[in-house]
Amino acid sequence: MTSRRDLLQALAMGGAGLLAGVSSGARAQHEGHDMSGMDMGDMKKPMPPAAGLVPPKALQRHPQGYLPVRTLNGWTLPYKLNGGVKEFHLVAEEIEHEFAPGCRAKCWGYNGTTPGPTIEAVDGDRVRIFVTNRLGEYTTVHWHGIDLPNGYDGVGGLNQPHIKPGETYVYEFTLKQHGTHMYHPHADEMTQMAFGMMGLFIIHPREVEDVPIDRDYAFLLHNWALHPGTYRPDPSVMQDFDLWTFNSKVFPAIDHLVARTGERIRIRIGNLSMWNHPIHLHSNPFWVTGSDGGRWPRAQWRREVTEIVGVGQMRDFEFEATEPGDWALHCHMAHHTMNAMGHGIPNPAGVDQSGVQDDIRKHLPGYMAMGRYGMSEHGEHLKMGVPGPVNTLPMMAGDGQFGPIEMGGMFTVVKVRNDLAAGDYRDPGWYQFPKGTVARRVSADPDFGSPPRRHPYGSTSPAPVMQPEMPAMDHSKHGG
Amino acid sequence: MTSRRDLLQALAMGGAGLLAGVSSGARAQHEGHDMSGMDMGDMKKPMPPAAGLVPPKALQRHPQGYLPVRTLNGWTLPYKLNGGVKEFHLVAEEIEHEFAPGCRAKCWGYNGTTPGPTIEAVDGDRVRIFVTNRLGEYTTVHWHGIDLPNGYDGVGGLNQPHIKPGETYVYEFTLKQHGTHMYHPHADEMTQMAFGMMGLFIIHPREVEDVPIDRDYAFLLHNWALHPGTYRPDPSVMQDFDLWTFNSKVFPAIDHLVARTGERIRIRIGNLSMWNHPIHLHSNPFWVTGSDGGRWPRAQWRREVTEIVGVGQMRDFEFEATEPGDWALHCHMAHHTMNAMGHGIPNPAGVDQSGVQDDIRKHLPGYMAMGRYGMSEHGEHLKMGVPGPVNTLPMMAGDGQFGPIEMGGMFTVVKVRNDLAAGDYRDPGWYQFPKGTVARRVSADPDFGSPPRRHPYGSTSPAPVMQPEMPAMDHSKHGG
Amino acid sequence: MTSRRDLLQALAMGGAGLLAGVSSGARAQHEGHDMSGMDMGDMKKPMPPAAGLVPPKALQRHPQGYLPVRTLNGWTLPYKLNGGVKEFHLVAEEIEHEFAPGCRAKCWGYNGTTPGPTIEAVDGDRVRIFVTNRLGEYTTVHWHGIDLPNGYDGVGGLNQPHIKPGETYVYEFTLKQHGTHMYHPHADEMTQMAFGMMGLFIIHPREVEDVPIDRDYAFLLHNWALHPGTYRPDPSVMQDFDLWTFNSKVFPAIDHLVARTGERIRIRIGNLSMWNHPIHLHSNPFWVTGSDGGRWPRAQWRREVTEIVGVGQMRDFEFEATEPGDWALHCHMAHHTMNAMGHGIPNPAGVDQSGVQDDIRKHLPGYMAMGRYGMSEHGEHLKMGVPGPVNTLPMMAGDGQFGPIEMGGMFTVVKVRNDLAAGDYRDPGWYQFPKGTVARRVSADPDFGSPPRRHPYGSTSPAPVMQPEMPAMDHSKHGG
Repeated sequence: MTSRRDLLQALAMGGAGLLAGVSSGARAQHEGHDMSGMDMGDMKKPMPPAAGLVPPKALQRHPQGYLPVRTLNGWTLPYKLNGGVKEFHLVAEEIEHEFAPGCRAKCWGYNGTTPGPTIEAVDGDRVRIFVTNRLGEYTTVHWHGIDLPNGYDGVGGLNQPHIKPGETYVYEFTLKQHGTHMYHPHADEMTQMAFGMMGLFIIHPREVEDVPIDRDYAFLLHNWALHPGTYRPDPSVMQDFDLWTFNSKVFPAIDHLVARTGERIRIRIGNLSMWNHPIHLHSNPFWVTGSDGGRWPRAQWRREVTEIVGVGQMRDFEFEATEPGDWALHCHMAHHTMNAMGHGIPNPAGVDQSGVQDDIRKHLPGYMAMGRYGMSEHGEHLKMGVPGPVNTLPMMAGDGQFGPIEMGGMFTVVKVRNDLAAGDYRDPGWYQFPKGTVARRVSADPDFGSPPRRHPYGSTSPAPVMQPEMPAMDHSKHGG
Repeated sequence: MTSRRDLLQALAMGGAGLLAGVSSGARAQHEGHDMSGMDMGDMKKPMPPAAGLVPPKALQRHPQGYLPVRTLNGWTLPYKLNGGVKEFHLVAEEIEHEFAPGCRAKCWGYNGTTPGPTIEAVDGDRVRIFVTNRLGEYTTVHWHGIDLPNGYDGVGGLNQPHIKPGETYVYEFTLKQHGTHMYHPHADEMTQMAFGMMGLFIIHPREVEDVPIDRDYAFLLHNWALHPGTYRPDPSVMQDFDLWTFNSKVFPAIDHLVARTGERIRIRIGNLSMWNHPIHLHSNPFWVTGSDGGRWPRAQWRREVTEIVGVGQMRDFEFEATEPGDWALHCHMAHHTMNAMGHGIPNPAGVDQSGVQDDIRKHLPGYMAMGRYGMSEHGEHLKMGVPGPVNTLPMMAGDGQFGPIEMGGMFTVVKVRNDLAAGDYRDPGWYQFPKGTVARRVSADPDFGSPPRRHPYGSTSPAPVMQPEMPAMDHSKHGG
Repeated sequence: MTSRRDLLQALAMGGAGLLAGVSSGARAQHEGHDMSGMDMGDMKKPMPPAAGLVPPKALQRHPQGYLPVRTLNGWTLPYKLNGGVKEFHLVAEEIEHEFAPGCRAKCWGYNGTTPGPTIEAVDGDRVRIFVTNRLGEYTTVHWHGIDLPNGYDGVGGLNQPHIKPGETYVYEFTLKQHGTHMYHPHADEMTQMAFGMMGLFIIHPREVEDVPIDRDYAFLLHNWALHPGTYRPDPSVMQDFDLWTFNSKVFPAIDHLVARTGERIRIRIGNLSMWNHPIHLHSNPFWVTGSDGGRWPRAQWRREVTEIVGVGQMRDFEFEATEPGDWALHCHMAHHTMNAMGHGIPNPAGVDQSGVQDDIRKHLPGYMAMGRYGMSEHGEHLKMGVPGPVNTLPMMAGDGQFGPIEMGGMFTVVKVRNDLAAGDYRDPGWYQFPKGTVARRVSADPDFGSPPRRHPYGSTSPAPVMQPEMPAMDHSKHGG
């Protein structure tokens, strides 16, 4: 099996490189997988344009008064009222999922997607949820964070019989709380969650909240061991995943969040991955205001720019959009803002690879030496048309208005604008910076200025350059 | 060395499988280990029934007025009063430990067990603790979270000389706080903690707490690199552990927690493992109320259903048992609710292995193909008597009243009942559900109903089925 | 490539050992690295004594009234006042860095060091920061946690063009908050942060804080994949790092923190590593009081002895120094208080290696058998002069007044004394314990006393020894 750690390591010979021309068929055969049940041809075809995507009319409130959440790249499950009970219907099934253009896989989800559709209801509602199992093995659904009778808690074997393939079970309970919650199987979790079975369950309060929200976004954190060149996630991986996702998508395929200055934004995040992810919003400090069970008491709202969202936790972030612009929102673990790549490769930094590439190409057409001065060349190479492995993604991707953003995985952008209409979620494009408000070049001379320097050890250190206003604080062991 | 990652990978040939018949002696020899100092025979004998386990009389308070904690699968260290000082005696020593029936190992602990016995005392008490070292290398004890004079803090080399093999040291200090604390060595931590040396140190307040507790449970989180087929934890493993434990036990060997509806429960959790574990209690929201130093101010109690208990942290969870039933309590990282298994195995999902098993069995008697439709077959196979590797545990285990629970590791059950006597901690058996309160089958037709579906991309997606009450919210990039 | 996991595994033959005599030149060649651009000779020379380290005069406040922070092993960047604007100048460049004597590497930093110099300013200040790029690839600077205009947020491609090699860019903004913040590149983060590019950005409040601080320490958490025998960090490593650092130093090279009893200490910690680190201070409970944006409301200050500092988070710890002594301050993950070592080695515990060492030495001069009774022999062996691999560090190091402390990585000591002058940060040496205040030996007889014991299972368990005052609490499943 090829992991993102192994990929380039296996291919690299005398340096680091990307090798083109590995046949996906050959790889699949080598792995002993019968991929015949899968329409491989279809997965390599260019995608047709998405259908039925039309701009909305206006900010749309539900008849019960609540503002529906915006599930990034997702949707809300319709329901049917039946004698005062809201009836929902989830179908557990295999699906074809696209992480970003160029990378699809056979996953498991609900009603055609991973994550499954968001369930939205109101505190006090009675809900009846049908769950049909169209998988090849049994399943159940656990309603994570919701206070309910024990027989509907969904732990297979403990709280109910498993739902066998082909069967439909029904769960029914009255909601006695509001807040951000999740649903996922509690049967063969190792496989079913690794394959993408999960969803959001948002319960709105009966009354409008005293600090009202203008835009309410929601997504789930997850990770996938989709080894480059393969078409199914590998459920046996414990930590070293290939893809890190917001709602099963990687940057640059993750929806942007848009907001108008002056609006109050909520971002609801649930974590069903295998890491406690520190989620960072640039510049705009937010308040962590709640979780399951709704908003915490006001005195507990905590100001942060990075909040760890633990596995099995939900966290609500709230902030007022004050500063227009394009603000990064991402997990702060550097390897979670990358897509599939080679780890453990021979370290090319500082290595002069002149000549090596040509030598290797005699034996391995397509070999590409890289990385003497860092990895920023990587994205450029891929753009020049050097082919990478099949069915994977460049590790750093996405172009902004000023060039490559060099991110992947758990990264998206919060776009704050002065001129959006309420309820307009359309992408406004990149921010048009007012003149003179962007970091700018002042010199192309590497010896510009007289920057103070300090050598970490030894007498070879140049003496610190003292400035008149404030001496350098030399915090060494023996000084002070 | 065989890790849980490597086990099945090494055995699998052309698919995933479990191979029976690996001789433990051969394996031990192959690894170059002299196991002669260990009574291997004894470890394979069936266990005699536990002795001296009789029901308690009633809720038992300590003469000083406090309710003793219930250490899951553990015990409290007796003490001797000597001139007003409570004298405790810990013995660091090698022990034979059982993680669950079928899996034992040579570990290190205190007074015969891992974790060592819980020390309980009262704020204001003066304690004198003798520590005898019966290990082959030196040790110390650090009293984690307790405010005390520097010479008793237990960092070998820094605060005291090491306790050499055979020696007894004494620590003596007056307690000036209450809360949940721990003890562990601060000498060759890498080895001594990896082998199981740890314990709880509970200090009760002098006065009864203003929000009184009816049942007070306590346990420690830990992880073990006990590679399948071996009999000693491997101290060099950093992250990829085989066993994840509550008080050094794995599900289904972990004690259940029992409670009567209306009672207030506290669960004290300390973490001396190598992961920050998100601990999840099903359905019943709890409040995180304290740590070392006792309860936090009431305004800081935080409602959660999952709380990250960091390494070196203690956390007190409190909740009122309101809803009767069997509630899962577990770490939410899916790989921490599994026992030893093979990671990194060739991914069998979706692979038709017909014929492969028979072919391989010609060469490898006992080979078992598995997993085409997921891993839920796995537990069933083991129950049918297909033998697994020696001295390890099936990765998913434990039967509930409705079938296999498919969990392992850090998983246990909180049993809330209406009819328990105060202070009765006996296992009440599985919950008897009132009629009509369990998720139930309503159909065996896979085409049941008309569930709304959405295709994540492309025009091949069937149009979402709209329901009259509420349109599907299609949160795509271009719509809204 | 050799990781700390692989090192001893590769060398060990029939047991665990350390092998001397591996030529660094041979290793570098074997890895296919051209190290010719690096002054290898210089890196092996003994370091000259540090220059210019003189004791300070007294507690020194900045003209604007604030107490400058003490950056462990670091320094504060001088600035120049230009028309009321504070002008700073950062230079991104390759440096030679020393993690501890005996272990240096080519890293990337700012102005000669990693971390780069600490920027200190005051809420309301206008700052102009020149950034010169002397690296071989482009870079940017992101001002982490600071609320500023979008064009200065530093995400290359999104918020600004990249700073190309040789160019100088300028960032300019007005500070409208105070607290603990950081700076780091947002361009090829995978490489640039793995190589050490980061720094602290402390903004002091305009007014003296209402609970004043007497000593204000600051450091950043980081990790490095500096494989033993190599001279450049490996940016492809995701989790399994070799060195874990406070301000890019490992114990015992990390500055001690000193304090006088009665003083209020703040320790500001930022995390730009790849782990959420649980930082533990011995005995002295602290309050987590703030982050970016300064102190939280008083009601949110939380008492802890261990706090998880997430990646991309800043945390301020405050406590009053009450108890004199030498107190350990460290990450509580045992493998983060170790330096480079071999993980995954054949497990030597319990294995009699008599004779093995001599046999192997016939073929491998310098081979050293180790670890039958644990790893505490390891440090002793190294002190006896047995050479280890080149350019790495013993995994457990540092001598205290009572012997080896057996720590490495993220570990240092807080020294609280009764007799320090205000503002004197000089190392006062080890604590002189008053007579009779250190844990002491009371017996050398392994059979000392009659400690209560309990066998974890089975009737072979000796009956617990009951003490008169309090019966042992046997918390078994069937009893109570």
